[in-house]
Amino acid sequence: MESHSSWVDIPRESHFSLANIPFGIITTSYSVEKHAAVAIGDHVLDLHEFASRSGFVELQDFTSAQIATFSQPTLNDFAALGQEVHSKVRKYLRDVFLKESPFPDILRDNIEAQRASLFQRDQITMHLPMKIGGYTDFFAGKNHAYNCGCIFRDPAKALQPNYLHLPVAYNSRASSVVVSGTDIRRPLGQTLDTASASESIFGPCRRLDMELELGAFLCKGNKLGEPINVDEAEQYIFGFILLNDWSARDIQAWEAVPLGPFNAKTFATTISPWVVLKDALEPFHAPGILNETKLHKYLQESRKDNVYEINLEVELRSIDGDTATLSRTNAHNLVYSFAQMIAHHTIGGCPLEVGDLIGSGTISGTEPGTLGSLLEASNGGKRAHHLSPTINRTFLEDGDRVTIRGWCGSEKLELVGFGECSGTILSASKPAWLDT
Amino acid sequence: MESHSSWVDIPRESHFSLANIPFGIITTSYSVEKHAAVAIGDHVLDLHEFASRSGFVELQDFTSAQIATFSQPTLNDFAALGQEVHSKVRKYLRDVFLKESPFPDILRDNIEAQRASLFQRDQITMHLPMKIGGYTDFFAGKNHAYNCGCIFRDPAKALQPNYLHLPVAYNSRASSVVVSGTDIRRPLGQTLDTASASESIFGPCRRLDMELELGAFLCKGNKLGEPINVDEAEQYIFGFILLNDWSARDIQAWEAVPLGPFNAKTFATTISPWVVLKDALEPFHAPGILNETKLHKYLQESRKDNVYEINLEVELRSIDGDTATLSRTNAHNLVYSFAQMIAHHTIGGCPLEVGDLIGSGTISGTEPGTLGSLLEASNGGKRAHHLSPTINRTFLEDGDRVTIRGWCGSEKLELVGFGECSGTILSASKPAWLDT
Repeated sequence: MESHSSWVDIPRESHFSLANIPFGIITTSYSVEKHAAVAIGDHVLDLHEFASRSGFVELQDFTSAQIATFSQPTLNDFAALGQEVHSKVRKYLRDVFLKESPFPDILRDNIEAQRASLFQRDQITMHLPMKIGGYTDFFAGKNHAYNCGCIFRDPAKALQPNYLHLPVAYNSRASSVVVSGTDIRRPLGQTLDTASASESIFGPCRRLDMELELGAFLCKGNKLGEPINVDEAEQYIFGFILLNDWSARDIQAWEAVPLGPFNAKTFATTISPWVVLKDALEPFHAPGILNETKLHKYLQESRKDNVYEINLEVELRSIDGDTATLSRTNAHNLVYSFAQMIAHHTIGGCPLEVGDLIGSGTISGTEPGTLGSLLEASNGGKRAHHLSPTINRTFLEDGDRVTIRGWCGSEKLELVGFGECSGTILSASKPAWLDT
Repeated sequence: MESHSSWVDIPRESHFSLANIPFGIITTSYSVEKHAAVAIGDHVLDLHEFASRSGFVELQDFTSAQIATFSQPTLNDFAALGQEVHSKVRKYLRDVFLKESPFPDILRDNIEAQRASLFQRDQITMHLPMKIGGYTDFFAGKNHAYNCGCIFRDPAKALQPNYLHLPVAYNSRASSVVVSGTDIRRPLGQTLDTASASESIFGPCRRLDMELELGAFLCKGNKLGEPINVDEAEQYIFGFILLNDWSARDIQAWEAVPLGPFNAKTFATTISPWVVLKDALEPFHAPGILNETKLHKYLQESRKDNVYEINLEVELRSIDGDTATLSRTNAHNLVYSFAQMIAHHTIGGCPLEVGDLIGSGTISGTEPGTLGSLLEASNGGKRAHHLSPTINRTFLEDGDRVTIRGWCGSEKLELVGFGECSGTILSASKPAWLDT
């Protein structure tokens, strides 16, 4: 996309360029009611306020019922309008923000509308963008799956026999998905007492980890009993966010046989607040990790560039304020696409719904410094990962703040990015009734 | 509770005696809008219609806002009013139905109100009673866990090392919970090709099973990071239903390592439509299966009679119309209570919410004829379970109708029962785009 200027000052390296225009849910000092908004540079346009001042009057065939979705406290109703509407709204807003806007009276030359609807990003509060009916976490980061397997098994058997045949997943918990900035309380739980090997001890998790993931929100659902065709599955996607699937590794090891991870995952999951529309990521399609296994027909996606080229970075800041880069990798490190995940999720007839969240699974590269979890970086907790002169970590410590960032494009182009997905670890807290 | 008569004719063995008065969501030929209702004998009282004719005027301190919850399309808002309100409403409705009603003008002698609000049960349609934010399935049926373990392992290792230390569970899928009577489509999926042992085949599930469970709906939630005290957990329960956790055993075997069952469970789960309030089950508390393991404090429940004495029965009807009893057992066959499940679910800080559904896990006895799944009854598919002269089953066949029933009390007392939880298996159906 040719780079154009905006009448809003957009810093060169802003994730929220004219090529992006992601959607979120905000409150402001003027309104405690949650509304839809878009991000542009260091600013935020409150779409409810914008709409109430006829901001959408120049958008053809955009009805008042559709406009009213921006006054809802989640983006679900807007998402349900479908990709064609998302795309035309995004393009329209881009036109509104162009320096040479075709509609200068809408906002560029309309000081009163700006005062009412355009805010600095640090003046607003972000909230969860969607009401999530179901959150499913996949395991499609093949390097992560392989690295974890090597920690526990012979590398020749690192990947389970099913791994390359189907996108393995588990149902996770929607109620503990929180927006970036929410503090993350170190969970209490049972872990195996390694001294005895069959008794358990109770207390704070001692192997607290993060997981770097990409998440997709759905804008469309399927009926019970009606699988989604893998070549149509992309039409079900509203947009993407970054996701940190905080994990309690010791709690997981003890609880997960035979029904999978449970409390190890459901104490919290953080997502970035701005949903980058599928539309905005179109230029960044790329092929993923090649799967040489012959897939069953329902997983055979015609599109080969079916994942995305997204630069991903994880930063850790210790309680002392020191920072270090934990990881740099790329979202193309997936062996299954979201379309394949959706097709697999529904092949037995499971219904997906607008607002559902799908996590890709931890994304890692193959080399040190490209790993999406501390479990991998510390080789299963066996060695501290030397992050900086002052920061060594096997697992997360209280006070650590983990920030995930992601962006597409390069400095020469307008960036399409996700902002931040972050959380700070608080020390575990035993309820009064549990003090022994 | 002393047996009293009702002015409504209640058949002696009705599950919906004056001691019960369960709540559900109905539509009628008069109203396509879903409303709250209660069951009484073979009748149903539409609470919205009843309320709109001043039916609750004699109930002290019951506000119009509270009454308005009966006009909602789910019971969530009524549930959120709390157990004290549930109890007083249930008691009031019982008084309304007493032959010697203290309020005869409300309904007994009010023909116009009866015409508008009292229906025959076969005149109404049942719907899901709650909007379910999260559905979690536990594994607390110790005999089931042991029986399944014996199928795969040495009986000395039938139970996993963690089993008696914590109520093992997995997050399941709320979107595929359906009301009794919904047809159940045999799922498509991948299963291990046993001939090759590392390839998979795709097609209809060939080991389709049912699971007899008790389910609890919540009326109260907890905040992120704030576990629920096991001795307060019962206050979070709205009421109970029967649950069939239909399972695709072959799909499960292939997909479940390492993240647990996924498509094997999420194609459908059936629940009975009438929620028996916790209040109504109080007389039927009983101790469960003794757990000799010393539990951690957060699971140490003061109450010892912490499960329920509920007669459970599973009937199978083949496509030819022949019927046989698959199983007779009791809901006291649980080693963990719902209070312990709730405490464990939240100990890491996971938030539960009004409307959440918790499944007990398959309930089985120890003897043939008391098993809650075909997996157990057929010893892992190795031998057909001889149910009747005309019905032998390893796993479910197309056209089979499985019906779960449950009731408390005996013929000499008023029964408190759940009605039916049933579903009929439809043959698998490949979408047109998947035909090879």
